[in-house]
Amino acid sequence: MTIALLSIGTELTRGELTNTNAVWLAERLSALGLEVTALETVDDHRERIERSLQRLAAEHSAILCTGGLGPTTDDITTECVARILGVELERHEPSLAAIRERMARVSRKLAPSNEKQAYFPENAGILPNARGTAPGFSVLFGNCQAFFLPGVPHEMHAMYLDSVEPELARAVPDPIVQIVLRTFGIPESSVNDALIGLEQEFGVLLGYRAHFPDIEVKVLARGSDRVATQRKARAAADEVVRRLGDAVYGEGYEGLPSVVGTLLAKRKLTLGVAESCTGGLLSALLTDKPGASSYFLGSVISYANSAKEGLLGVSAELLEAHGAVSQEAAQAMARGAQKVLGATLGLAITGVAGPAGGSPEKPVGLVHFALATPDGVLSYHFVKPGDRERVRILAAHTGLNHLREWLLRSMTSGSRPPTFEET
Amino acid sequence: MTIALLSIGTELTRGELTNTNAVWLAERLSALGLEVTALETVDDHRERIERSLQRLAAEHSAILCTGGLGPTTDDITTECVARILGVELERHEPSLAAIRERMARVSRKLAPSNEKQAYFPENAGILPNARGTAPGFSVLFGNCQAFFLPGVPHEMHAMYLDSVEPELARAVPDPIVQIVLRTFGIPESSVNDALIGLEQEFGVLLGYRAHFPDIEVKVLARGSDRVATQRKARAAADEVVRRLGDAVYGEGYEGLPSVVGTLLAKRKLTLGVAESCTGGLLSALLTDKPGASSYFLGSVISYANSAKEGLLGVSAELLEAHGAVSQEAAQAMARGAQKVLGATLGLAITGVAGPAGGSPEKPVGLVHFALATPDGVLSYHFVKPGDRERVRILAAHTGLNHLREWLLRSMTSGSRPPTFEET
Repeated sequence: MTIALLSIGTELTRGELTNTNAVWLAERLSALGLEVTALETVDDHRERIERSLQRLAAEHSAILCTGGLGPTTDDITTECVARILGVELERHEPSLAAIRERMARVSRKLAPSNEKQAYFPENAGILPNARGTAPGFSVLFGNCQAFFLPGVPHEMHAMYLDSVEPELARAVPDPIVQIVLRTFGIPESSVNDALIGLEQEFGVLLGYRAHFPDIEVKVLARGSDRVATQRKARAAADEVVRRLGDAVYGEGYEGLPSVVGTLLAKRKLTLGVAESCTGGLLSALLTDKPGASSYFLGSVISYANSAKEGLLGVSAELLEAHGAVSQEAAQAMARGAQKVLGATLGLAITGVAGPAGGSPEKPVGLVHFALATPDGVLSYHFVKPGDRERVRILAAHTGLNHLREWLLRSMTSGSRPPTFEET
Repeated sequence: MTIALLSIGTELTRGELTNTNAVWLAERLSALGLEVTALETVDDHRERIERSLQRLAAEHSAILCTGGLGPTTDDITTECVARILGVELERHEPSLAAIRERMARVSRKLAPSNEKQAYFPENAGILPNARGTAPGFSVLFGNCQAFFLPGVPHEMHAMYLDSVEPELARAVPDPIVQIVLRTFGIPESSVNDALIGLEQEFGVLLGYRAHFPDIEVKVLARGSDRVATQRKARAAADEVVRRLGDAVYGEGYEGLPSVVGTLLAKRKLTLGVAESCTGGLLSALLTDKPGASSYFLGSVISYANSAKEGLLGVSAELLEAHGAVSQEAAQAMARGAQKVLGATLGLAITGVAGPAGGSPEKPVGLVHFALATPDGVLSYHFVKPGDRERVRILAAHTGLNHLREWLLRSMTSGSRPPTFEET
């Protein structure tokens, strides 16, 4: 049973829009245990649409097609399907009523172009659209079941999850259980090496995906008994966590900044930040999470030395003696942020993001970190090659990760993260 | 002359990776005046790769294929091409020497898997790889010219620009000249309305692309005489700028934060920032540009009221009387940032990003802005619906855009942007 995805739209073939629908569907379908072997995109051209649909229908057991269901004249997917099937379009009254009602809610009258969206090939199954005007539909091309969904991503997602996935899931003989573990701070080759033999031992498949700056580890288990399969996946995931240790920061789709925020909220600790080379990136990542104000008090982005002195109380002598990119400066910035923001914890980052500003002693990619805690100041540094954007993203996440490690250690044992030197 | 793109890789059909290569190539090829009508992706499966290549070769005048040129056993594109052509693979000595030299530079020995990357179908044209190990190649399938490029984006981009685009450009009878204008702050429908009649008047095509929070306007001119076509495109682009006014902030691919940075550097002015709801996003955008330290002195991310008071000198009475999200608070924050950072200009943002924290008087999406200049403080506010992420992105860009407008006006006429109330 193989699946094909067909995306329709000239804005896609002209490269005006990135096709996020295909990758979203491919990932969902793969997670379900289905094999997607072809992803195709065609422009809004009648013959090419019909030719692609007919060929894909002959080669695959199911097609998921997105786009071309809108009200305008270049939206011709429905017509093409009717022509292939040799049937007429017929009006679906409940859909027309739903469209009319939706238009009334936004105080607009039903235009003929919208009425068009209530016409479907005879005998098609209708897929309701919870988020927009155009319903989708499904038909059979011989033995191939084809689903037609809108191209607007949030409408398509809802329709797929409501109507398509449940139907496809019934066709999968052995359901797949997938657990995604998120890691940060160790290279892909080390993740790989640490997990050698685990697939055989637990009867699961492991997948890796570098999603900078994270590496995701996917545990896939398959079997006819769902409960037993879930248990198998869980046991293997637990073993992954045992082998990789604290490098695994979370499970599922929650990123590092959000995990750190949750830990801070749980511990009822407050944070003040001092950023230099990251220029606000760490703060922006932390405050992306709703409710951040309960633990994040604020930051000082001390780009100029005068800001390090005036706002954070870093002494001019210290900056003169050690430079703004130094362990000493990072520690003083962390203490300053902790103090001026009145926070339990102060986190500081200072480094050389490049491309200019490097020297043999302090090359581009050198970043110093410090964390001021109630018991003292911890510090750390790295040198990572890369362009400005990568250095900044990596530095912001590394700062958050060290904070996470401290939060975990101080919760469980009071010991310090081994990568930090205490000062 | 139609073009097909074929992307090869199971990581793509499984949805583990977004296909950025296809959209990049489609946009470049379209800008060149070529018509891309099919974008396809297949997994690392010999028969499916061969079947797709043969079919696309029969239907199109050129194919650009990416992926499957790497050293591992699942990289089988080259073999598939040789099989379709019925030829042997032969070793290309200059490529082998280049690979060996590249490995030596990173102190690695040539593995048999790398040696494989120097084998090509007999009579193939070799496309050098300036950025990585695997060269690309081109062959003829009947009348269809097919180019095979690596899947790693930066290697593929360089190879396409160096070797493929010049060859394809020669085949385009009437070259296209494209000018991209970047706009911010007016809705797509207004952009549209303002430009009615311009296509006919200048004999060009206009394209629109919403790239949140910007709207790009593309001016496309086509003609056999390159100089005359360039002149036509320029005249039409100038008319677009005349009609849209300051909403056009730039041309090409430089974003708003970078444009604002360039203006600040040119004027030799310095900036201090105070951010609340945007949590560092505006500062992170500004400091993404190398050399930002010449005008950006720093920021205070005053999430907590105590930070607004302690670091920016906003009085507790003012916050009590008007609230942290108010014109008064924004103005005091802007003045505070200007003063404590010792900057010529102080820019402040305070708002309700949501999803919680809204009220009937101060709904989610209400954001106040203020700009402290040497002559006084300007302020502005908006209410924009949207989720937290959109409100924050829009607020950061709106703050930057008002700064840009002030910089432009004060350069040319000394007058104020009309959207600001002077206080």
